[in-house]
Amino acid sequence: MKDVLVKDLYTKPRDFGDESITVSGWIRTTRSSKKIAFIELNDGTYIKNIQVIAKRDGLDNYEDVTKLPISSTLKVTGKLVETPDAQQPFELHAEAIDIEGVSDPDFPLQKKAHSLEYLRTIAHLRPRTNTFYAVFKIRSLAAFAIHEYLQKNGFVYVNTPIITSSDTEGAGEMFRVTTLDDQDTPKTDDGKNDYSKDFFGEETNLTVSGQLQVEPFALAFRDVYTFGPTFRAEDSHTKRHAAEFWMIEPEMAFAELPAVLDRSEGLLKYVVQYLLDNASEDLQFLNDNVDHDLLDLLHKTVDEDFARITYTKAIELLEKADVDFKFPVKWGIDFNSEHEQYLAEKVFGKPVFVTDYPRDFKAFYMRDNEDGKTVAAVDLLVPRIGELIGGSQREEREDILEAKMKEFGLPREEYEWYLDLRKYGGTKHSGFGIGFERLLMYVTGMDNIRDVIPYPRVQGSINF
Amino acid sequence: MKDVLVKDLYTKPRDFGDESITVSGWIRTTRSSKKIAFIELNDGTYIKNIQVIAKRDGLDNYEDVTKLPISSTLKVTGKLVETPDAQQPFELHAEAIDIEGVSDPDFPLQKKAHSLEYLRTIAHLRPRTNTFYAVFKIRSLAAFAIHEYLQKNGFVYVNTPIITSSDTEGAGEMFRVTTLDDQDTPKTDDGKNDYSKDFFGEETNLTVSGQLQVEPFALAFRDVYTFGPTFRAEDSHTKRHAAEFWMIEPEMAFAELPAVLDRSEGLLKYVVQYLLDNASEDLQFLNDNVDHDLLDLLHKTVDEDFARITYTKAIELLEKADVDFKFPVKWGIDFNSEHEQYLAEKVFGKPVFVTDYPRDFKAFYMRDNEDGKTVAAVDLLVPRIGELIGGSQREEREDILEAKMKEFGLPREEYEWYLDLRKYGGTKHSGFGIGFERLLMYVTGMDNIRDVIPYPRVQGSINF
Repeated sequence: MKDVLVKDLYTKPRDFGDESITVSGWIRTTRSSKKIAFIELNDGTYIKNIQVIAKRDGLDNYEDVTKLPISSTLKVTGKLVETPDAQQPFELHAEAIDIEGVSDPDFPLQKKAHSLEYLRTIAHLRPRTNTFYAVFKIRSLAAFAIHEYLQKNGFVYVNTPIITSSDTEGAGEMFRVTTLDDQDTPKTDDGKNDYSKDFFGEETNLTVSGQLQVEPFALAFRDVYTFGPTFRAEDSHTKRHAAEFWMIEPEMAFAELPAVLDRSEGLLKYVVQYLLDNASEDLQFLNDNVDHDLLDLLHKTVDEDFARITYTKAIELLEKADVDFKFPVKWGIDFNSEHEQYLAEKVFGKPVFVTDYPRDFKAFYMRDNEDGKTVAAVDLLVPRIGELIGGSQREEREDILEAKMKEFGLPREEYEWYLDLRKYGGTKHSGFGIGFERLLMYVTGMDNIRDVIPYPRVQGSINF
Repeated sequence: MKDVLVKDLYTKPRDFGDESITVSGWIRTTRSSKKIAFIELNDGTYIKNIQVIAKRDGLDNYEDVTKLPISSTLKVTGKLVETPDAQQPFELHAEAIDIEGVSDPDFPLQKKAHSLEYLRTIAHLRPRTNTFYAVFKIRSLAAFAIHEYLQKNGFVYVNTPIITSSDTEGAGEMFRVTTLDDQDTPKTDDGKNDYSKDFFGEETNLTVSGQLQVEPFALAFRDVYTFGPTFRAEDSHTKRHAAEFWMIEPEMAFAELPAVLDRSEGLLKYVVQYLLDNASEDLQFLNDNVDHDLLDLLHKTVDEDFARITYTKAIELLEKADVDFKFPVKWGIDFNSEHEQYLAEKVFGKPVFVTDYPRDFKAFYMRDNEDGKTVAAVDLLVPRIGELIGGSQREEREDILEAKMKEFGLPREEYEWYLDLRKYGGTKHSGFGIGFERLLMYVTGMDNIRDVIPYPRVQGSINF
C-alpha cells in the first residue's frame, strides 16, 4: 500500500503492478446507484481529479460514503486500472475507503457556476474551484520562475524594508504605521500626532517601492532585485488597482537603458515559457474557460521579439490613428490606457517597449537625455493590460541629480544617503519594476486584480 | 574585447587566448610606485577581487588612476595572465583604464576595521564590506534555496496578506495601519479613532503571521507555504528581535506531527547544503573572520540526523543538569533561552526537536494530545540560536477547536472562516514556521539580527 499523489499519476509512470495504492482527497462529485458509485476525487496536487470506482460489494461503508456531501475528505485504497479508451486515462478501484472529514451539506461551492464577485466573499474557499486553483498555482510558479531566472543570471535578492520613513518619488497616498495610543494620543503644539513618541520615534509609512533602497546594493553586488509587497492608499476602484500588491524590482550596475529592455524581455519570456512547461493543464483550463486568446498570446510572447519604439514615434503613431481618443494626443502627454491599448493591441499585437519619455512627468531619478526634453525611461505595454513594466537608467551624475531634486521639490536631507551613491564611486546603473499582479493578469487571462490575489485588499474591504 | 565578470574568472575556464577582456568594478586598494601600480578591483559578483597591474608605460592616465580614492569606479581592459605561483590565480594587465566614477576621499569604509554598530549607521554602504557582502549574498541564496526545495517538493507559494484585520494567536503587539487624518481625526462617542471612516472601514494591523490565512490553501493544494514579512511592535532590545522580519510558513494537508519534523529537517539540510555548494567562499570568509565554528556546525547540520525528544524528556534532562539555571526547571514551564541553549549545545551539540509541549502556553490551534495535558507541537532548538523553528499539528476536530477558542477567549465571529475549514471537508493537517533572520544568524555566524537585515527596523530607529 503506497501513498500516491494524483499529479504523479498523471505525469509519471504508473507502474504499481499488483500493489494497492492510497489516494487522499476531497470529493468533487459523486454519481451512485445501488451497486456502484463514481466519485471524482481531487487531492490538491493537480487540477484534474481521479475517478474512484466504489462497489457496494466489498465495501462495508458503501452507504455512508455515497451519501457524503461534496467536499468531504476520503482516503481511498485500491487498485489503479488503466482505461486507455475512456476520457480519463485511469481509474481507482476502491478496496477500502476511510472517511477523514464529513463536509456540511451547505458547502457553498455546489456544482454550479458562481460569479467571481461572490467567490471573492469566500476567499478561504475559492481556491477549491478549478479557476482559482489554476490562478493560484500559476501565481506560485510564476513567482518561482522569476526568482530562478534572476538567480541563474547572478542577481542577488534583497529584502528592502516594508516600513519606511521616506516616500519614494512621491508616488501616491501612503498608509501610516503607528503604535500611538488611539484614545489618549500624544500631540504636538500644533495639534498633530507627536510621532517622536511613536514606535520608531518619527512618522512612518508602508513602502510604495523598494527601488531607492535597492540601488545601494546594486553598487555592491552589481545585479540585484527586490520582490516584496508594496502599498498604495489610493481612492481607486478600478479592476487594476489594489492597496496591497507585490513588485519585482531588478537593478543593475554598469548598465544603460538598453540593458533594461533586454533583461526585462528575457525575464518575461522565461516566466511565460516556465508556465507553458509547468502549468500546461492550468493554462489550458483558463484558455477554455476564461480567455480563449490566452495561449495564443503566451506563445506569441515567447516566440516573437518585442517591438521597440520611442515615445516620440508612439505619439506619431497615435496621431495618425483612425481612432477617436477620449484624451487628445500631442507630444508631452502621459499615455492613457486607451493609448497604451491601441499601441499594444492594434498597432503591434504584442508587447511593445516605449522609450525616452518627456522628463516632466517622470520621476526625478531618471537620467536626462542629451536633448534636454526626455529621460532614459521605458515602459513595456502589453495587450489587454497596458503598462506592465516601467524602468529607466538612473541619473548617476551627482550635480544633475541634485539640481533635479531641487527642481522637483525634494528635501535634500532625506535623500543624503541616495546622493552618497553618486559621491562614492558612482556608476551608470539602470533598473525596472514589474507589478506582479499585472503580470499574473497577463498570464492567466483574469480581468480583475482582485482575482489574482489570495486575499485582496482594496478600499473599504478587508476580510480574513 | 569581452566584458567579463570576476565570478566567472574564478569559477569558469579562463580561455581567452589573445583576446583582451574588460572588467568593471570598484577600487578596494591601490599600491603604486612611479612605474607600476597594483589595484584590487571588486566587481560585485564575487567576494574576491581581481588584481589589476597598471604600468605608467602605455597608460595615458596612469597618474590620474593611481591617485583615485578607494571606491572609485574603473573599467579596465587588458590581458588576463595566469599566475599559478602567486596568491591569486590570475591578474589583469591593463591596456586601457576608463575612470567611470571618482569617489570622494572621505569614503567612510577606509581600510581599517569598523565596528558593526558603526556600520549599521551606513546601511547603504556596508554591503561593500566583505562581511556584509558575504551575509547578504547568503541571504539571497538561502531565500532561493527555500523556494527551490519547497517547489521541487510540490509546495505552492501563497502570498498571505500583510495588512490584516485579525490578530493571529494574540501574538505580541501589533502595528496599526491607517490613513485617518492625524490632525482632524474622526472620533467615536467614546473618544477613540473612528475606524469606520478609515481606508478599509475598520481597524487594521500589520500581520504577525500568515499561518491562519495559508491554511485554507493547504486544504485546496495540499502542500503550501508563505514566505513574506511579518511584524511585531515589541519593546524588545535584544539581539534576536526586530520589528520587521521575514517568515517561512509551510502548511501540509494529510500530515501529522512527524511530517513537520521530517519536512523541516529536510528543508534546513537542503538550505545548508545549497550554501555549502554555492557560497563556499563567503562561508569561508565568515568562518575565518566571524565564527570559527561555523563550517563545523554547518557540516554537522547536513551530515547528522537531528535529535528528537519530547518536552517531558527535555525537562528530565534539564532537571538532571549540573547547571544553576536562572529560571528554575519543572514540568509546565516554557523554556528560557538558557534551557534551549543547554539542550542544543551541551546535551546534543546539534539541532534537536522537542515535541509535545504543555497545552497551556501554546496556541489555541495546536492539536490536543490524548493525555489531556500536551499538544502535538514541536520546536527545533539549534546551537547558538535557540528556537529556530516552531510547528504543530493543527486541531482539525471542529468541536474541540471551538471549545478551545472559548477557553482561550477568542471571539468566534472573527474566526468563523477558520472554523469553516473544519466544517467543509476538514482533514488532519500540520505546519511550521521558520524565522528567516534566525536561520540567517545560524548559517552566517552573525550574532545580532540587525546584521542580517538590509535595513533593520527596531524600536526607536528607522533610517533609509
